[in-house]
Amino acid sequence: MLEVDCPCVTPHVVLKASGHVDKFTDLMVKDEKSGQCYRADHLLKEYCKENLEKDLLMSTEKRDELKHVLAVLDELSAEELGAKIKQYGIVAPDTKNPLSDPYPFNLMFSTLIGPTGLLQGYLRPETAQGIFVNFKDLYYYNGTKLPFAAAQIGQAFRNEIAPRQGLLRVREFTLAEIEHFVNPDDKSHPKFKDVADLKLLLFPREEQMNMKDPVPTRLGDAVAKGVINNETLGYFIGRTYLFLITLGIDKLRLRFRQHLLNEMAHYACDCWDAEIECSYGWIECVGLADRSAYDLKAHTEKSKIELIAREKFTEPKEVEKLVIMPIKKETGRFFKGDARKVEEALEAMSEPEAMEMKERLESEGQVSFKVCTLNKDVTINKNMVSISKTVEKVTGRSFTPSVIEPSFGIGRIIYCLYEHSFYTRPSKTGEEQCSVFRFSPVVAPIKCTVFPLVQKKEFDARATELSKQLTRAGLSCKIDTTGTSIGKRYARTDELGVPFAVTVDAEGVTVRERDSKEQIRVPAEEVPSLLKDLCDQQLSWEEALTRYEIVGGTNTV
Amino acid sequence: MLEVDCPCVTPHVVLKASGHVDKFTDLMVKDEKSGQCYRADHLLKEYCKENLEKDLLMSTEKRDELKHVLAVLDELSAEELGAKIKQYGIVAPDTKNPLSDPYPFNLMFSTLIGPTGLLQGYLRPETAQGIFVNFKDLYYYNGTKLPFAAAQIGQAFRNEIAPRQGLLRVREFTLAEIEHFVNPDDKSHPKFKDVADLKLLLFPREEQMNMKDPVPTRLGDAVAKGVINNETLGYFIGRTYLFLITLGIDKLRLRFRQHLLNEMAHYACDCWDAEIECSYGWIECVGLADRSAYDLKAHTEKSKIELIAREKFTEPKEVEKLVIMPIKKETGRFFKGDARKVEEALEAMSEPEAMEMKERLESEGQVSFKVCTLNKDVTINKNMVSISKTVEKVTGRSFTPSVIEPSFGIGRIIYCLYEHSFYTRPSKTGEEQCSVFRFSPVVAPIKCTVFPLVQKKEFDARATELSKQLTRAGLSCKIDTTGTSIGKRYARTDELGVPFAVTVDAEGVTVRERDSKEQIRVPAEEVPSLLKDLCDQQLSWEEALTRYEIVGGTNTV
Repeated sequence: MLEVDCPCVTPHVVLKASGHVDKFTDLMVKDEKSGQCYRADHLLKEYCKENLEKDLLMSTEKRDELKHVLAVLDELSAEELGAKIKQYGIVAPDTKNPLSDPYPFNLMFSTLIGPTGLLQGYLRPETAQGIFVNFKDLYYYNGTKLPFAAAQIGQAFRNEIAPRQGLLRVREFTLAEIEHFVNPDDKSHPKFKDVADLKLLLFPREEQMNMKDPVPTRLGDAVAKGVINNETLGYFIGRTYLFLITLGIDKLRLRFRQHLLNEMAHYACDCWDAEIECSYGWIECVGLADRSAYDLKAHTEKSKIELIAREKFTEPKEVEKLVIMPIKKETGRFFKGDARKVEEALEAMSEPEAMEMKERLESEGQVSFKVCTLNKDVTINKNMVSISKTVEKVTGRSFTPSVIEPSFGIGRIIYCLYEHSFYTRPSKTGEEQCSVFRFSPVVAPIKCTVFPLVQKKEFDARATELSKQLTRAGLSCKIDTTGTSIGKRYARTDELGVPFAVTVDAEGVTVRERDSKEQIRVPAEEVPSLLKDLCDQQLSWEEALTRYEIVGGTNTV
Repeated sequence: MLEVDCPCVTPHVVLKASGHVDKFTDLMVKDEKSGQCYRADHLLKEYCKENLEKDLLMSTEKRDELKHVLAVLDELSAEELGAKIKQYGIVAPDTKNPLSDPYPFNLMFSTLIGPTGLLQGYLRPETAQGIFVNFKDLYYYNGTKLPFAAAQIGQAFRNEIAPRQGLLRVREFTLAEIEHFVNPDDKSHPKFKDVADLKLLLFPREEQMNMKDPVPTRLGDAVAKGVINNETLGYFIGRTYLFLITLGIDKLRLRFRQHLLNEMAHYACDCWDAEIECSYGWIECVGLADRSAYDLKAHTEKSKIELIAREKFTEPKEVEKLVIMPIKKETGRFFKGDARKVEEALEAMSEPEAMEMKERLESEGQVSFKVCTLNKDVTINKNMVSISKTVEKVTGRSFTPSVIEPSFGIGRIIYCLYEHSFYTRPSKTGEEQCSVFRFSPVVAPIKCTVFPLVQKKEFDARATELSKQLTRAGLSCKIDTTGTSIGKRYARTDELGVPFAVTVDAEGVTVRERDSKEQIRVPAEEVPSLLKDLCDQQLSWEEALTRYEIVGGTNTV
């Protein structure tokens, strides 16, 4: 994969071409007195939900109506939303003032580039557009070969009307996006077989429409049956699953939900969201979309720079080609000053038009022909134009690649990871609950803590030396030489999600695993390499238990 | 070090407090007809330089004048700059139109936060302010202990009037900043001894003023002599030197230049720039400043939230304290309704004032005393006030920490690294020059290339397997199975700065080092661990040469 790092401040023309200037909006209503702004759909949604929950005497018709509104909420136009808000008498939640009609609010932060004040720019609402506008160079750097992918990690900015839900809807966030460019006629993926046997929770369109549950499905079967559109999209779904599981997301609270037809952009082939369940419900954390050739075509159209790929045929192909050749001596003689426009019009004929003219010239000797640029009909004689077909050998073709886009919301993934990693367990005395983050050693920000068992100069020195060795081995570690009881120090490190604790005592060194609380005695000189192997997942804790003496540590906390 | 990741979009109030809203400006002039903008100092500088170079008949006085203008350029006010531009008849370079008077242009990109249009924000012009406003939490996370540092890597934005010099002056760039908070009374650093023996090119203020050259100086001596203000600043200068050298910056083209007094902000104690020489001249790539307590005090003042640290004395200190106690029975009786104001004025006396009153009351029995809030003098009798000194035990004190800030311009460092790493050497035939980047294995984006010596199915398979193993060992590698000659493939990989090339042939595997072009024969199964050690700098190439058979490879290219 090629990695790029494009600027956040993006000129108007790029986001005009991508459609964001015109369409990246949410519908907003304003408190007519205070000016406070709300998202129109949020207010209507809250109204429906609240009434469905609280008004137990509601008629069945009314109940069905509110349920229907909730179901079609995302499809309502500004007018329809406004009509519903009026009909239900919804007012500003904070002041009970009347609300304005809904109107579109563009979610891009706007700014001016340069000192003249004439060049409008926006903070990018996604990182993808930077890759699309650089397609030509990226394709070249990849040796003009397809498929290839470019990736970008960086800040994206959306001027949300109502930021909410903690880290889930914020105005500035880290996006990690991959744009994988493929030949639209061949979306197979050579590594798909590596993920085909994964069984994951798929929630296809049909199950959603029929109010059914997500189904554990073998990825290979989903692609074979056409539930997932193609192998490449399937491959990225599989890799996304593995990525999230490796981070520590609970696979039972991870599902892949297909977009309903009305959710999907008109140009998209297929879209799936990786949704993770947390206390806010099922949250979209990764979007996986086959966006067809839409983006590259949009930028080609605006910039007039062709963002295309070239395919070389394995064998040259014979292609029939239409040749229209005006006989300029004749046309010049007849049409004088208009001759050039007549010739251009002849050359611009489509194949059916040209073949029809050829036939009629052969049978009738002349035809009447409309020249739009002259705004009149002229008469074309047999000797004014030669129309024929030749066969040419063609060695390849140009086309606009399709793009398959996995887009990761890093903040949302990290938030869900916190929730899925958090648990509590009783303290040693059973009097209080201790908090633990079960961060995998791969993601834990601190890999181990080093403790002297008791405060003693000699233990402190050995602990400091050990901590230096661990740092040198590339393991981030924390040393705790406070006089606090060892149990409390274990509880502290558990709360930070540190997977391993190394304790220095009179007899040597022990290593404790956070979740099992099991301890092994390890020769001091082997501690750095053992921890490195455990953190790089070259060795499991279970294997470590078989190699070293287990000490009675489970009752320490 | 604590790492933070603060938003790019920053509310007005933060940058008002820091001084950026009022002072982060460049002086600009406008073409009065076309509206094109220029930096006033750039135009004046170009005028002076051009005339000094080209006008060989210029009088000595005029020559001295222009030299003087260049020397004081950074200190000129808008009025002075404007006067010089008028005096020299400088016009817009592109159109020769007259120019406006210089006026300040704020370099921050401005935007509006949220949907109301009422909350002004700016894109951060540096990352440091995010750390300052979070000082309270960071200090808490560090266990309320000093010194500690917080670091941030991220985008900064400056709406330059005239971006120029390729990657050197751009409107959006990556900054990496460290804010190291210290007790202003103790700027020693425990690890300074680790860098004290480094000898580096220092360019102190005095050498610059006297038109002398930078001097190779032992860091320990520079701190001891007070050339560098304190150990902590010296420590970061040393670490910056080591960092840049490790990346591959040429130490002969790296100097540390002290700011002249007029360059430095009024609050700063001492500032040094790491400057790297490249084709654009000596470029400031890292700024190292002792900013004293300025930033925390500015935010404290604006936010009314105290950004302070507390120092606990090792032993309680005895502190003499002045006690002024009005005898309210007496003052009430004498001054009636004015009594409270008299009492407050007595309590507000400074120590010298109070001690003088005490003396005079003892000698004369009464004194005349001006009460400002009453706007008159009153007579104070001996029995109206008790003035004394007591001794109190104090266990600690609160203070605003100083901050020492190393600030790295990542784009500039990378640009200079490209220049310092680039060289050419003749091709095998001597007919052309081959380009090479001598990137150290630590920074080279691709660590090795894998080639089959000739195109053969068996070689290809072994090369592919080897490349997989290298990837698994965490080494980014590139496989080249094209039929191009091995010499050309080596040249390609040299041009990309790949330090090692692994060639698979009939007899086994060879590893080639890029710059020496030396080759060794290595058993296939040892290749991943050997390359890992070489890239982690656990093993030098010279050591590798002693362990494996050297093959005649220097004449391959």
